[in-house]
Amino acid sequence: MNIKITGTGSYVPNVVTKNADFNQHQFLNEDGSAFKQNNDIIIKKFKAITGIEERRYAETNQVTSDLGFLAAQKAISDANINPEELDYVIVASNYGDVKHGNIQCDTVPSMATRIKQSLGIKNPHCVAYDLLFGCPGWVQATIHAHAFIKAGIAKKCLVIGAETLSRVVDPSDRDSMIYSDGAGATVLEATDLEGGILAHEAASYTFEEAEYINFGESYNQEDTSGTRFIKMKGRKIYEFALTNVPLAMKSCLEKAGKDITDLKKIFIHQANEKMDEAILERFYKLYNIDTPKDIMPMSINEFGNSSVATVPTLFDLVRKENFKNHNLNKGDVIMFASVGAGMNINAIVYQY
Amino acid sequence: MNIKITGTGSYVPNVVTKNADFNQHQFLNEDGSAFKQNNDIIIKKFKAITGIEERRYAETNQVTSDLGFLAAQKAISDANINPEELDYVIVASNYGDVKHGNIQCDTVPSMATRIKQSLGIKNPHCVAYDLLFGCPGWVQATIHAHAFIKAGIAKKCLVIGAETLSRVVDPSDRDSMIYSDGAGATVLEATDLEGGILAHEAASYTFEEAEYINFGESYNQEDTSGTRFIKMKGRKIYEFALTNVPLAMKSCLEKAGKDITDLKKIFIHQANEKMDEAILERFYKLYNIDTPKDIMPMSINEFGNSSVATVPTLFDLVRKENFKNHNLNKGDVIMFASVGAGMNINAIVYQY
Repeated sequence: MNIKITGTGSYVPNVVTKNADFNQHQFLNEDGSAFKQNNDIIIKKFKAITGIEERRYAETNQVTSDLGFLAAQKAISDANINPEELDYVIVASNYGDVKHGNIQCDTVPSMATRIKQSLGIKNPHCVAYDLLFGCPGWVQATIHAHAFIKAGIAKKCLVIGAETLSRVVDPSDRDSMIYSDGAGATVLEATDLEGGILAHEAASYTFEEAEYINFGESYNQEDTSGTRFIKMKGRKIYEFALTNVPLAMKSCLEKAGKDITDLKKIFIHQANEKMDEAILERFYKLYNIDTPKDIMPMSINEFGNSSVATVPTLFDLVRKENFKNHNLNKGDVIMFASVGAGMNINAIVYQY
Repeated sequence: MNIKITGTGSYVPNVVTKNADFNQHQFLNEDGSAFKQNNDIIIKKFKAITGIEERRYAETNQVTSDLGFLAAQKAISDANINPEELDYVIVASNYGDVKHGNIQCDTVPSMATRIKQSLGIKNPHCVAYDLLFGCPGWVQATIHAHAFIKAGIAKKCLVIGAETLSRVVDPSDRDSMIYSDGAGATVLEATDLEGGILAHEAASYTFEEAEYINFGESYNQEDTSGTRFIKMKGRKIYEFALTNVPLAMKSCLEKAGKDITDLKKIFIHQANEKMDEAILERFYKLYNIDTPKDIMPMSINEFGNSSVATVPTLFDLVRKENFKNHNLNKGDVIMFASVGAGMNINAIVYQY
């Protein structure tokens, strides 16, 4: 028995927010002091490092579970299954549903409950739950589905990553330009077909790293409301990721018994273009080879960092030949890899 | 190989809040109208139905992850394991960390990351994540741990249920008297010892039931802040639970291949005394027998409904002979069962 992705879907929100749309923001340092540069220079520098030119936001009347539902619908249709046959609906999210203009995260009932309801699935034996694992949540949810199928308690699982980071950003924080909204979904099935998940790897670095991504007050000291926002220690994350992600990827590839030259595509969490490129360079350096051209599809330029949604969205677009010149062929060995709040790292080696 | 609970721990917060402490509340109906009865009568009626006389609240400087840490520490010590050997830290929660007097739920990083950090565990291969499954979260997290061990990706798991419902209550809602705070934890291990988890059952009823427990505005229409609180449709939940929980319990017992007379204790989610008694009566009625005396330890009278914490806390107290006249003997067949937001239902048959 193998475990394969039999359907994919994604929802890229319609609202395009360009870098220029941040021109009127007053960006501040962590201590509340103003930057010496003007916004033109700040935004140019931001673009040079992260690669982000624009990002997508959910419509004001949408919430995370709406985006997840739209992606899930496509994945189910693509897999051509009866949704009533699903054993699990697993949703990776971080903040639950956050209404536009609202500071409360709504996590009860779970996103999985809401999406299952929107899908109209009646079967109560289809178990719906949410998983919180930072940005690597969708990859981890895939590891869950794999374990449930291996343990004999599931045959078909719907795995969704959905998030609206635009609803938890501090407008005076430069990093607010990074975050975006989106959703990606996959159907995983036990199958007699060749390929599927060959190996997976997961790690949680919490001893010193727990607060690298956290919930903190605005950099604007005039905001005395106590409202908290997503906050990250960018430099520390960069160093952490460069040290640990390539090693996790290598360990996963070894578990899969595959050679570095077998790898055809790497779908990596879209956190920061320069960081992703540096991770890949270090990964290939572990094998003493140069990074192959076109191995890493990058969507961050247009979509920003939509957390749990980046990897499944990218995979869906490439799989359907809707993303630049990237494509996949039957038998291709590929890798999913992610890093984020926790700090968590994971990877999956998958034969297409 | 069997999968057994090798250690348990719980943390019952110190702050005792008695029913009389609600005397000054102005309880309102859903439509904002006042009750016809005075608070004395409302509280007496409340006590008669739910069984709750007092409940525990976390200290103002504590949050959910603090309670979880205190319970986890005891479970690890009880299991007499080196925490660095843990493969997973799984935390069932619903609202994350909610600071006293604050309306924001803080879910990033996960409760599992925070608790793992507080425990001082350095091993990055100990994977830490949160699971959102309503009140049945701890039972479901145990099902996860069981699946991971069966799938060969874990040998030792720390499974925690921690919650501070007192931080998300609407003071004008009678139901606010139900909710409380607490944490329970268990260590699950692959073992050659006899017994352990014999069967499990889980279901998500989302088609009509998704909103039975939700996040809604205050019943006090003078509160125009838009702040939302935990809200439940009590009557609908009561009927739903009475119809579906006994059937899930029976299905689980059948899967385990055990007879109804084998059952020595039932640890059921402490939601409402009358409801729990009615569930048990219906369960035994499915076998045409009367409910045995002393089979269901009840802590709701003193502890209220602490969500994911009720079942592991009760199990810990009984196991250590710290709860009334209840005790457990080697070989006893017992059941864990829960129902809550989702609406989710689950059960585990376990041989002690």
